Amino acid sequence: MILTVDVGNTRIKAAVFEGSTVVENFVFEKNELEKKIKKILKKFQNCSDLVVASVGNIEKQSFLAFEKELNIHFLTHEDVFPFNNKYATPKTLGIDRMVLAAGATLQFPKQNRLVIDAGTCITYDFIDEKDNYLGGAISPGLRLRYEALHNFTARLPLLTLESPEHYIGNSTKEAIHSGVVNGFVYEIDGFIDEYRANFSNFIIILTGGDADFLAKRLKNTIFANSNFLLESLSQTFQYKIDND
Amino acid sequence: MILTVDVGNTRIKAAVFEGSTVVENFVFEKNELEKKIKKILKKFQNCSDLVVASVGNIEKQSFLAFEKELNIHFLTHEDVFPFNNKYATPKTLGIDRMVLAAGATLQFPKQNRLVIDAGTCITYDFIDEKDNYLGGAISPGLRLRYEALHNFTARLPLLTLESPEHYIGNSTKEAIHSGVVNGFVYEIDGFIDEYRANFSNFIIILTGGDADFLAKRLKNTIFANSNFLLESLSQTFQYKIDND
Repeated sequence: MILTVDVGNTRIKAAVFEGSTVVENFVFEKNELEKKIKKILKKFQNCSDLVVASVGNIEKQSFLAFEKELNIHFLTHEDVFPFNNKYATPKTLGIDRMVLAAGATLQFPKQNRLVIDAGTCITYDFIDEKDNYLGGAISPGLRLRYEALHNFTARLPLLTLESPEHYIGNSTKEAIHSGVVNGFVYEIDGFIDEYRANFSNFIIILTGGDADFLAKRLKNTIFANSNFLLESLSQTFQYKIDND
Repeated sequence: MILTVDVGNTRIKAAVFEGSTVVENFVFEKNELEKKIKKILKKFQNCSDLVVASVGNIEKQSFLAFEKELNIHFLTHEDVFPFNNKYATPKTLGIDRMVLAAGATLQFPKQNRLVIDAGTCITYDFIDEKDNYLGGAISPGLRLRYEALHNFTARLPLLTLESPEHYIGNSTKEAIHSGVVNGFVYEIDGFIDEYRANFSNFIIILTGGDADFLAKRLKNTIFANSNFLLESLSQTFQYKIDND
């Protein structure tokens, strides 16, 4: 069994895998890291390896407490990945985006792949059918948009995610929900249309905390899997073992 | 002559009007308010009226120093506007959005009008051909998106507006520029498409600090006028005089 841990900008997501199957999922805050992992390892005593991708401000040291019980694999840019990295600044490419690209490359071979991760930020990552990773885009996620409207203006309230009733919001709250949610959906569909116009033989994978909320609102057909990053972490680890 | 002042979330924009013609435009910071207005009034001694719309945290008191030289008109929801306000929460409707709707109603009579103001926030405001103001949407403007990416993540840099080279950004900087700028453009085109699909006899007015940057990037044809809010302020004032 392996324990995969995704340290994002906001929270930590984790999953225990038996082979390629998820046995259990976990979501917790960063200050609960040690306590929660202890609890997971107590429940799943067969765990042999811990695989981590971190873009939040938690480094490898935070996991060394578990070194006696587990092999720790803290993924970095130095690891082997199953794609050709054509990024001009590979060292600033977030490890989460590399893992997503690896998962897409391994799970959906020989086709053009766009991975959209709708979390704190939304990231777009494109791997062409010859396994070249070409880059993508980064923009603010849903919660960030709500927070930005409140934090950078004198009078707008802080709202939590709600589905807008109409694209014409007839109150300040409805106007904000429409601007944030519809704007986000138009953005994603716009990016997908742009890729589709330029590439054929295409799969689009949507993941991240807002994947389920978004999937039913997009006009484009996509493959939605909110667990895709953790699955990709498990596959990247397997690939590393096989190719190191 | 009248002096119009638009107190936004970030800066203050002002213009001196002779009838319906702009004589000179000014942009300044909020802490320069008194000094700058003094300077403007020294240059344009024929100014009789000061018309203000404020959504930033500057209230009427800040302008009372000029009461001896000028008639002060600090617009509020109690003023007369040339449209039927169908907003469910009229008291929380930003005075800037009311002024934009007034300007659109007066300048482009008897048609469906969508006003898009791309400033600190982007606001969408719709007035139908029967002069009913129906509401719209609010989402973060370009600069807010750049700031949100930096402020709410551990590792993304703070960038200033730049045109992305490609929709596939091949470096972290290019990925951010693509996500922010292309995402913004897709959002605006998405909203316009939605309105166009539901209404005919349509004009779209684009204004705000980012209007010129955006206008040439939209696939939809729009009427771009970065001075539209100040012009609308002057017209709203004239309408108030004629109808009070």
